[in-house]
Amino acid sequence: MKETEISTLGEFGLIDHLTENLPIAQSSTVRGVGDDCAVMHYDGLETLVTTDLLLEGIHFDLTYVPLKHLGYKAVVVNLSDIYAMNGTPRQITVSLGVSKRFTLEHIEQLYAGMRIACEQYGVDIVGGDTSASVTGLIISITCLGTAPKDDIVYRNGAHDTDLICVSGDLGAAYMGLQLLEREREASEGIKDFQPDFAGREYLIERQLKPEARRDVIDELRQLGVRPTAMMDVSDGLSSELLHICRNSRVGCRIYEERIPIDYQTAVMAEELNMNLVTAAMNGGEDYELLFTVPLTDHEKVAQMKTARLIGRVTKPELGAYLVTRDNAELEIRAQGWNAFNSNQ
Amino acid sequence: MKETEISTLGEFGLIDHLTENLPIAQSSTVRGVGDDCAVMHYDGLETLVTTDLLLEGIHFDLTYVPLKHLGYKAVVVNLSDIYAMNGTPRQITVSLGVSKRFTLEHIEQLYAGMRIACEQYGVDIVGGDTSASVTGLIISITCLGTAPKDDIVYRNGAHDTDLICVSGDLGAAYMGLQLLEREREASEGIKDFQPDFAGREYLIERQLKPEARRDVIDELRQLGVRPTAMMDVSDGLSSELLHICRNSRVGCRIYEERIPIDYQTAVMAEELNMNLVTAAMNGGEDYELLFTVPLTDHEKVAQMKTARLIGRVTKPELGAYLVTRDNAELEIRAQGWNAFNSNQ
Repeated sequence: MKETEISTLGEFGLIDHLTENLPIAQSSTVRGVGDDCAVMHYDGLETLVTTDLLLEGIHFDLTYVPLKHLGYKAVVVNLSDIYAMNGTPRQITVSLGVSKRFTLEHIEQLYAGMRIACEQYGVDIVGGDTSASVTGLIISITCLGTAPKDDIVYRNGAHDTDLICVSGDLGAAYMGLQLLEREREASEGIKDFQPDFAGREYLIERQLKPEARRDVIDELRQLGVRPTAMMDVSDGLSSELLHICRNSRVGCRIYEERIPIDYQTAVMAEELNMNLVTAAMNGGEDYELLFTVPLTDHEKVAQMKTARLIGRVTKPELGAYLVTRDNAELEIRAQGWNAFNSNQ
Repeated sequence: MKETEISTLGEFGLIDHLTENLPIAQSSTVRGVGDDCAVMHYDGLETLVTTDLLLEGIHFDLTYVPLKHLGYKAVVVNLSDIYAMNGTPRQITVSLGVSKRFTLEHIEQLYAGMRIACEQYGVDIVGGDTSASVTGLIISITCLGTAPKDDIVYRNGAHDTDLICVSGDLGAAYMGLQLLEREREASEGIKDFQPDFAGREYLIERQLKPEARRDVIDELRQLGVRPTAMMDVSDGLSSELLHICRNSRVGCRIYEERIPIDYQTAVMAEELNMNLVTAAMNGGEDYELLFTVPLTDHEKVAQMKTARLIGRVTKPELGAYLVTRDNAELEIRAQGWNAFNSNQ
């Protein structure tokens, strides 16, 4: 039998491969694999569903992530996918695999974080599954949401001349992770080690307790702006821009000087001798919303409090490029976090 | 900090504990945790969602389960939960965690089995997630279904004097597992070992390729029978009967002579020197439908091809008992498969 290493495909390659030519039997399936959420039309409203599998040692490291924060984040990343479709999250199911290393109190902490996130966003936990696992902690969450049919924003609606916007700032969650890893290494073998996060609290919070940008969705509605394409930034801005370009069959120009970066992120990049723009473009786990709007909405988005204009959509043959401060054009490549990288 | 071993609670204890007093914020949440599926009302139809997490070394052993069969079964057990609510499965999402031991072809086989099951039952795969895992294979499937509001059958609707029915036969999947384990042990260290399943094909099929009982739902509809309570038999008849009794606040009497058992199951129990009724009551993984109907439907269920009458619902103070052939009454206890047993 032919044997292909999964790592040669990468995560998206494997999904694409497996779901190629997947038949659709149900007339209620409006959209299946290939966007932040699947969309089902049962009646007046559309039902959205999204799911995430988080594995210890792959997606999180419990040596520096408190279980309560992990629970919170595990829920938020799913809600973020529903918002990224311009929908409203409604319910989640939670399945856990738990090794003998964990006590009931550990799992209570995890669940407490989940419950806080649900309360925060008005979402119900409606089911799930809990089981022993051979090694480590496994978290699988599925979120259902709804949206009126005409409100739903896919990845494939961007057009030439549209404006590209992103909410919040980028790269901070990645820098938070670097900081946590640095302190963990420093703590090794030292009793009662006190990590020093002074002045870096924002980076830590962005890594450990991200939020889903419901406020961006609200502001867009208030302004009467309906994005033409939208995604949440989980794998990094570069990766998500290329998803929108590929799905919408367009190109893009992003301006380096417009990329929103927090002061703490910049200081940390300097300290670690890392390229700041690379970190912001490829860091991932920002859970910000990346969206495109028609050029005619320029004035509206220019006044947004939660998002800013970072570039424009072009014809596909112009490719996807980052325009630097000195006007050079760098091709955008996906260097986002990849769970099948051999160095994971 | 207080430390409680999870094993002291068992799987159901842990879920009950974690979901106690869970708030419901959404008016669309008709039913949350505590039945085969959660129920959401968005519009005219109800949306059903159910989820299952399957872990290598806990729920399946790849030394004797072919990946294609595993994929098929992983889907079917979710569909079974939707049918157990008297609903129609519509879509599933599939998340996989895959260790380096697996090649692309392995995962293709797994997915092929899933696709066959989906085709068989007219269900769409609409999303999911694929990731590396540190050890072993992890499968998380969520199924969405629909049902008209008045069709949905919960676990809590059984009343005193109702009749208790079960579809198909019981204990065969458990015996299939015993047979597979025996052959695996016999094969150890023997090159080109050929397992001997002659005359036991039914047991192997029941273990490796169970079906969801859509036909039972169809027959009930044709007869105009709406069950008062229903569950699928995944953990064993005893365990499920006690769920219905507890949720409906009733007791029950089940008649040993009425319990449907296949000839191959009986022969295998004899050979293994196991108590046949214990195996049928507690074996689990049958994925048959257990349901109660009003006494007035006696004639209708008596003529069913897919199910048979096995007992009756009583007042709660009468408890839950198995009436043996010699008219002794044995209290029904849940001895079903428990993923938190210390001997797992």
